[in-house]
Amino acid sequence: MGLGHAENIESGKVSRCELAAVCGPTPEKFTRFPNAKGFTRSEELIRSGAVDAVLIATPHFSHTPIGIDALQHGLHVLVEKPISVQKADCERLIAAHQDPKQVFAVMFNQRTDPYYRKVRELIQGGELGPIRRINWIITNWFRPEAYFKLGSWRATWAGEGGGVLLNQCLHNLDLFQWLFGMPKRVRGFCRFGRYHDIEVEDDATAYFEYADGATAVFLTSTGEAPGTNRLEIAGENGKLVLENDALVFIKNEMPMSEFSRTATKAFAAPTTQELKFTFPDHGGQHVAVLQDFVDAILDGKPLLAPAREGIRSVELVNAILFSSALNQTVELPLDSAAYEKYLKEKVSNSRFNKNTVRTPSVLADDFAKSIPR
Amino acid sequence: MGLGHAENIESGKVSRCELAAVCGPTPEKFTRFPNAKGFTRSEELIRSGAVDAVLIATPHFSHTPIGIDALQHGLHVLVEKPISVQKADCERLIAAHQDPKQVFAVMFNQRTDPYYRKVRELIQGGELGPIRRINWIITNWFRPEAYFKLGSWRATWAGEGGGVLLNQCLHNLDLFQWLFGMPKRVRGFCRFGRYHDIEVEDDATAYFEYADGATAVFLTSTGEAPGTNRLEIAGENGKLVLENDALVFIKNEMPMSEFSRTATKAFAAPTTQELKFTFPDHGGQHVAVLQDFVDAILDGKPLLAPAREGIRSVELVNAILFSSALNQTVELPLDSAAYEKYLKEKVSNSRFNKNTVRTPSVLADDFAKSIPR
Repeated sequence: MGLGHAENIESGKVSRCELAAVCGPTPEKFTRFPNAKGFTRSEELIRSGAVDAVLIATPHFSHTPIGIDALQHGLHVLVEKPISVQKADCERLIAAHQDPKQVFAVMFNQRTDPYYRKVRELIQGGELGPIRRINWIITNWFRPEAYFKLGSWRATWAGEGGGVLLNQCLHNLDLFQWLFGMPKRVRGFCRFGRYHDIEVEDDATAYFEYADGATAVFLTSTGEAPGTNRLEIAGENGKLVLENDALVFIKNEMPMSEFSRTATKAFAAPTTQELKFTFPDHGGQHVAVLQDFVDAILDGKPLLAPAREGIRSVELVNAILFSSALNQTVELPLDSAAYEKYLKEKVSNSRFNKNTVRTPSVLADDFAKSIPR
Repeated sequence: MGLGHAENIESGKVSRCELAAVCGPTPEKFTRFPNAKGFTRSEELIRSGAVDAVLIATPHFSHTPIGIDALQHGLHVLVEKPISVQKADCERLIAAHQDPKQVFAVMFNQRTDPYYRKVRELIQGGELGPIRRINWIITNWFRPEAYFKLGSWRATWAGEGGGVLLNQCLHNLDLFQWLFGMPKRVRGFCRFGRYHDIEVEDDATAYFEYADGATAVFLTSTGEAPGTNRLEIAGENGKLVLENDALVFIKNEMPMSEFSRTATKAFAAPTTQELKFTFPDHGGQHVAVLQDFVDAILDGKPLLAPAREGIRSVELVNAILFSSALNQTVELPLDSAAYEKYLKEKVSNSRFNKNTVRTPSVLADDFAKSIPR
């Protein structure tokens, strides 16, 4: 990711933003960015005085220490998802953000997708009515074995802290909470190395219950081809289905519960109208989030994706994994200390068991990029 | 149901079959069938000598005693679904079928639907390959409150023994086991009277695990409008989706796991081909099952839906309800005695608490029809 972000900035796609410095373990790569200072240790970049802001696109575990370091040195921070691997680290990272003038954002680029934005608008504007059930099948994350062989840290507890939920699906789980809020109870069913020679989960089904009684199923896998990406939402005022670049809203003329109470025929159902929304593309994605970050710094504009909201998708991932391990439903808010203990055991028994795994400068195997003063 | 079946026979839709007798609590209805003898008690019809076979279309709880009575008196029996309300009664009913020359069938009319038959053919013929995951959203069973007010026995533990799973969804759960076999583990999440003023479940989500590692989600409700009926099956050789009168098979050129093991690119996926199946109608349904029953009696043809297979869908219903009540996963085969105990408690606390509820002749509130000698 880091190289792509640096190239987006370097090529001028983000207005009022310059690439002043880059950081990574491979100095040969710095030559691609002749106008930027090169660092091999994030500590040096953060203390260099060369930048106003940093984009942290390093392995997951290092987001917490690098993020805290950057925030404590007064920099604006845009962190790749997940903001941290587990809830307790998210809490530590968020706690380091003390200055309200410091902008602290997370790269949830899918929040810029007009399809998801339209879903959110239909929910928040009340058009869909209270939500009763959600079903998201998001199995189009197929990865062959070759993907996991790219690095020995991949798909290990010590290297990444989780599998498909943390790596591929985190965007979808962020959208889930962005659209529907946080559930009260989570029951997870994870399968570890079901399809691949890996130790983390590559297949998961989760059942959520919300405080207002709504229920949801979230289902993902990196082992299925061809996959599916289908989001269905049943609301009082109808049903929304997002699949294959079309958002279809089958709208009830009368809310379903009101119809149920008032209908006099035993087999009657509300009259419906079908609306279909399509958009020319999937929005500005990474570049749009970078622009949003810059605009927040320079103009004080509210962020599309504040980093403090990044704890929620991580909490969902942790809860699904923890529930699966405990073989029982877990209540939210998740006990972050209990999950941290569980994850530490997984990490200590991981096949990728590098002692240096939590040292940020060693883990920074890609570019951490920055926005200049 | 009973009246409809009797009319199908009376109008000659079932070849080599005559309506010789009818049974029900309302003799006024017998006048519709002037050539048939009328009985108000099933015991009398069964002992009358007037018929070779009976179709039992009475309230669920009475299927067991009436079925046992008819089998013990040498009649061929076609029983409406569910064959019984709970697994222990299914075992008793099936045990009464001792004579292999007696034909004992169940009214699983949806097995005649060419869409489901095609799905089964693609699975059993090996075209889909081993199944990895199934997701069936079957929420198009919307029923307004008026439906449940039709009879005080409706949607009560004592009157029906269950809700949406036993009444509306039993067909789907039969198809589930007919297509995919029985799971090893079931986790159910039922909601009781979520959408209606009833005591039984009107909303359910279930997660299944199979012996070979396959997983499934089954989801239903009588409270959602507009509903969904979408069956998705992920197999090694591709994905099948049945929805809106179209069966789409996205077929992999190479099985997904073999592709995963052999691909050299990290983001590659199998090449696919799309096949679409549509059929002019949904098959012969009830009349076809009646014909199948008659042909089995007269020609010794194997049954499309032997009654002994009817225990499986009931076991799935019981397991989903029991798991939900226990708030934990249950293993199959289900402990039928434990479930019977649970259900008896529900029945004894039911708002519909008629002492006569298990007396067949009182419960036979519709027509039990028969096929003459």
